[in-house]
Amino acid sequence: MAIKRKKVSVIGAGFTGATTALMVAQKELADVVLVDIPNMENPTKGKALDMLEASPVQGFDANIIGTSNYEDTKDSDIVIITAGIARKPGMSRDDLVATNAKIMKSVTQQIVKYSPETFIVVLTNPVDAMTYTVFKESGFPKNRVIGQSGVLDTARFRTFVAQELNLSVKDITGFVLGGHGDDMVPLIRYSYAGGIPLQALIPQDRIDAIVERTRKGGGEIVNLLGNGSAYYAPAAALTEMTEAILKDQRRVLPAIAYLEGEYGYENIYLGVPTILGGNGIEKIVELELEAEEKAALDKSVESVQNVMKVLP
Amino acid sequence: MAIKRKKVSVIGAGFTGATTALMVAQKELADVVLVDIPNMENPTKGKALDMLEASPVQGFDANIIGTSNYEDTKDSDIVIITAGIARKPGMSRDDLVATNAKIMKSVTQQIVKYSPETFIVVLTNPVDAMTYTVFKESGFPKNRVIGQSGVLDTARFRTFVAQELNLSVKDITGFVLGGHGDDMVPLIRYSYAGGIPLQALIPQDRIDAIVERTRKGGGEIVNLLGNGSAYYAPAAALTEMTEAILKDQRRVLPAIAYLEGEYGYENIYLGVPTILGGNGIEKIVELELEAEEKAALDKSVESVQNVMKVLP
Amino acid sequence: MAIKRKKVSVIGAGFTGATTALMVAQKELADVVLVDIPNMENPTKGKALDMLEASPVQGFDANIIGTSNYEDTKDSDIVIITAGIARKPGMSRDDLVATNAKIMKSVTQQIVKYSPETFIVVLTNPVDAMTYTVFKESGFPKNRVIGQSGVLDTARFRTFVAQELNLSVKDITGFVLGGHGDDMVPLIRYSYAGGIPLQALIPQDRIDAIVERTRKGGGEIVNLLGNGSAYYAPAAALTEMTEAILKDQRRVLPAIAYLEGEYGYENIYLGVPTILGGNGIEKIVELELEAEEKAALDKSVESVQNVMKVLP
Amino acid sequence: MAIKRKKVSVIGAGFTGATTALMVAQKELADVVLVDIPNMENPTKGKALDMLEASPVQGFDANIIGTSNYEDTKDSDIVIITAGIARKPGMSRDDLVATNAKIMKSVTQQIVKYSPETFIVVLTNPVDAMTYTVFKESGFPKNRVIGQSGVLDTARFRTFVAQELNLSVKDITGFVLGGHGDDMVPLIRYSYAGGIPLQALIPQDRIDAIVERTRKGGGEIVNLLGNGSAYYAPAAALTEMTEAILKDQRRVLPAIAYLEGEYGYENIYLGVPTILGGNGIEKIVELELEAEEKAALDKSVESVQNVMKVLP
Repeated sequence: MAIKRKKVSVIGAGFTGATTALMVAQKELADVVLVDIPNMENPTKGKALDMLEASPVQGFDANIIGTSNYEDTKDSDIVIITAGIARKPGMSRDDLVATNAKIMKSVTQQIVKYSPETFIVVLTNPVDAMTYTVFKESGFPKNRVIGQSGVLDTARFRTFVAQELNLSVKDITGFVLGGHGDDMVPLIRYSYAGGIPLQALIPQDRIDAIVERTRKGGGEIVNLLGNGSAYYAPAAALTEMTEAILKDQRRVLPAIAYLEGEYGYENIYLGVPTILGGNGIEKIVELELEAEEKAALDKSVESVQNVMKVLP
Repeated sequence: MAIKRKKVSVIGAGFTGATTALMVAQKELADVVLVDIPNMENPTKGKALDMLEASPVQGFDANIIGTSNYEDTKDSDIVIITAGIARKPGMSRDDLVATNAKIMKSVTQQIVKYSPETFIVVLTNPVDAMTYTVFKESGFPKNRVIGQSGVLDTARFRTFVAQELNLSVKDITGFVLGGHGDDMVPLIRYSYAGGIPLQALIPQDRIDAIVERTRKGGGEIVNLLGNGSAYYAPAAALTEMTEAILKDQRRVLPAIAYLEGEYGYENIYLGVPTILGGNGIEKIVELELEAEEKAALDKSVESVQNVMKVLP
Repeated sequence: MAIKRKKVSVIGAGFTGATTALMVAQKELADVVLVDIPNMENPTKGKALDMLEASPVQGFDANIIGTSNYEDTKDSDIVIITAGIARKPGMSRDDLVATNAKIMKSVTQQIVKYSPETFIVVLTNPVDAMTYTVFKESGFPKNRVIGQSGVLDTARFRTFVAQELNLSVKDITGFVLGGHGDDMVPLIRYSYAGGIPLQALIPQDRIDAIVERTRKGGGEIVNLLGNGSAYYAPAAALTEMTEAILKDQRRVLPAIAYLEGEYGYENIYLGVPTILGGNGIEKIVELELEAEEKAALDKSVESVQNVMKVLP
Repeated sequence: MAIKRKKVSVIGAGFTGATTALMVAQKELADVVLVDIPNMENPTKGKALDMLEASPVQGFDANIIGTSNYEDTKDSDIVIITAGIARKPGMSRDDLVATNAKIMKSVTQQIVKYSPETFIVVLTNPVDAMTYTVFKESGFPKNRVIGQSGVLDTARFRTFVAQELNLSVKDITGFVLGGHGDDMVPLIRYSYAGGIPLQALIPQDRIDAIVERTRKGGGEIVNLLGNGSAYYAPAAALTEMTEAILKDQRRVLPAIAYLEGEYGYENIYLGVPTILGGNGIEKIVELELEAEEKAALDKSVESVQNVMKVLP
């Protein structure tokens, strides 16, 4: 029985999708299929070819193709969804939700058709609701549909802490619960530099500033870029989750998971600490929350539910 | 005496410059300063911050900043120039050369001012002439001014051969001489799969097709993208050259070097096999050429000289 | 369907086996089972535990266990055989062959029992004959039983050439045919520095000296160590072959393969250029040999056949 | 000004020293000089050559030489001391201390002679006292003389926790204070899985068992091996500390540092949390200890001081 390479499909060949494809290939995790709409087929092929032409120099063996044909995604081990539109000036939030939910449904049907056993990782915003939409549309068990937010949010938090303390990013950890966005719930008491609680190292007002900056981390990049949103760090986050699953690493990573009573919530996709391995979300880790944290999480859940209400 | 990190500055924060910054940082080769014009300062800062936020996830320690202030490049070990405009519809080649040469001069003055001991690696097109311009403007010794073309050209060639033979890119090598562009001179007799000459493995007509595709490799990506040009493979090439110098690896890599009689040419920057190490271009490797190869190289030199004639 | 990690078993927990286990784990290629005889069970467990304790620092996720129970090797993807004795003073070559062949048979029975679908890579000397013994005993198809010699031999050759020319090892390639030992057949015309044939760079007498040193490369280390033989480079070679198979890389690597007419030989395991991928040896690459090369290969074959004659 | 590779010398070419040399080279951190006594010169050369012959396969550019001549260590950036004897049956602890202290002095004189600006990292046991001896003999400032124990001790702790919880080693952190040995002081409240305090995840009796196993971690390997002691994990620890300094990473790592009042102790080398970067120990991180922890640390200090009393 021949050994075959793993296969990862990335839906949406914008900057995040393309950068994710590159990072997955650089690590030789899998062959990569980059998918976009027929209109964008040539640019998608161009990006894939350009990456492939980097492979002899960077020394990785991974095929990368661009396509608009979902048949090429057949038998993927993991499918990553980055497709969707960004909110444009004058567009209501409800319109955004409706449009992206529609895209999620259509994309999910294609994924399920060609890779009924795959894992799906969702990045499209508003990501909690979009992951929920994909879950429902796919009919997949909950462990195989996962949303990304916490790896990115904590990456930003860790970056800011590393800068504050002038320390290696390798030794800073962060922890975040709840929905992706202004209502995210960073748990400072579970955040450390070299294992030392941040409160012992950084004055509270600076911690508060870092937390606030983390909450607005996506917006900070949007404002700086002027045209577009972050893609390097989001792609790194997607790649780490992909690696955890493909290598069955049983990482402890924050992810958007389907809750059935955990933390007191039901029928919702929400950011929680999970164990991510060869079964996708292998477990949701439940923590005792302090009253204030629970209140913040309730508020975050409410925000997510408000978005879910307008799902088509 | 404290040990300090190396420093690499990348001039031009477009896709190639930004991707190069990422790849240099991913390998922990150096801290990175990404520079663009004042108009683009915020997007440049945005890209740098986004990359930095990927660092905790990808596990690299490298500071990355975006700036429009050359003072931030002070004491760089290597400066990579990706700045410049692409040819637009209706623009004559001479106008392109004039505009980019002007940019090279201005950029070089700033580089020399703040990093008089640095190495400079040039990517801007037409790269042979632009490297020459930077050399003249900098007043640097020839070993410290280097142009990139051959690593990229051979990467494309290697990719196409790997696809043709369905083999690992790790085992395919290529060899190219001359100017970057349609007149490049691939030396097939020095190109191998696992050490086996390609002519023993691929029919001549397929080799010819691969050579032709390699010559037009940049255009193929431009045509597919529709808007813009290749950046992944060019960035990988720049990163490999940077690594060879920073780690004093004495790699045998094709590079655009200043000739003083080698291969029979003088006062020209041209793609030749070089030894790249801690002194930049440590040596140009001279090979015996067959008559046909020499003729092709003459033609390529003529093309480069024609561009040089219109240098301001 | 959960994604499971690959599994590699290494038979023989001496220095080579242990170093191979470490290198496979460092690259996160697979979980590793290190096997030795019951007498050595505790030291084997000790080495495995020590390596595992390196994993948090080196950042790799791979389980490593030591055992003397072949049941622990169950369902291995690849089994690497390093077991066997070294020739001791006063021992005849025939005694060595007889002893190691007996070990090969016993080990192979255990491997086949627990991993009937696995690939087997053999290092034990005399490796050509031992690979043949494993092939016969296993009843496996020829693509799944592979011997290691050429990756190591060319690694030594490449090291010596890199030293001679003071160049990066990354740009030196070598090529060797035939049996492992004094009769190996290095093909200098297929060996390069940066794609340039070595004959253009190194005087013939120095090339001859390098070839001679390569032939005696194992003995040079034995003489220096005084007690024991090489293990770092052999382990690196085994790891590269393992990676090529596990990642289905279709590398062009020299390996000891079963010949059925290739190069004019039959019913023999011999070092030849192969394509190594997810099917093990996917193809043997046949080259036209010059008369002198063919004669040298004939002599090498004769040596291997002489060893095969004394196989029990 | 040419860029030169960094240089690391490893004193003592036993298993730990040799494995450290390999790991430093694998990461292309520096060229490596492996030093042992004249008696062992040939085996040292043999190990170095064997490693070098692994470099083309593993793809690293680093020169590795074996020698008994300290002149070869000239201008090292870092010198790692692994030399010394292990305690033999019938040997008193005082004899061990006296012998190894004598070795430290002799080795240090040679190091200082040829590399007066280098950093020194000490592994030789009893490591707290031996680091003190090297410090005194060298006359170096305290930031440039560092002992290794905590990275190894926490690596073992992290391994046991990862096994207990069946989680990735990447997400487990540990924390240890005090001398290396049975009196080490693991701070469980600063040890986490994915940022979650271990006490929330593991029953206290299992934590106690893991702590106890960590304390005896060196002995566990010694007992299993039967002949010799751990070297893979110690080498990984030394390599991580070396990397932190050479890349100026400002890691938060436990290290044996010279105390001048920190934690209430003076004139002693003791395991404490430090910031390790381009200045060696850039800072000692002081933590508030609970009464029980302080008492345990006092006891550990007493043990170290008892060893120091018998220093020659």
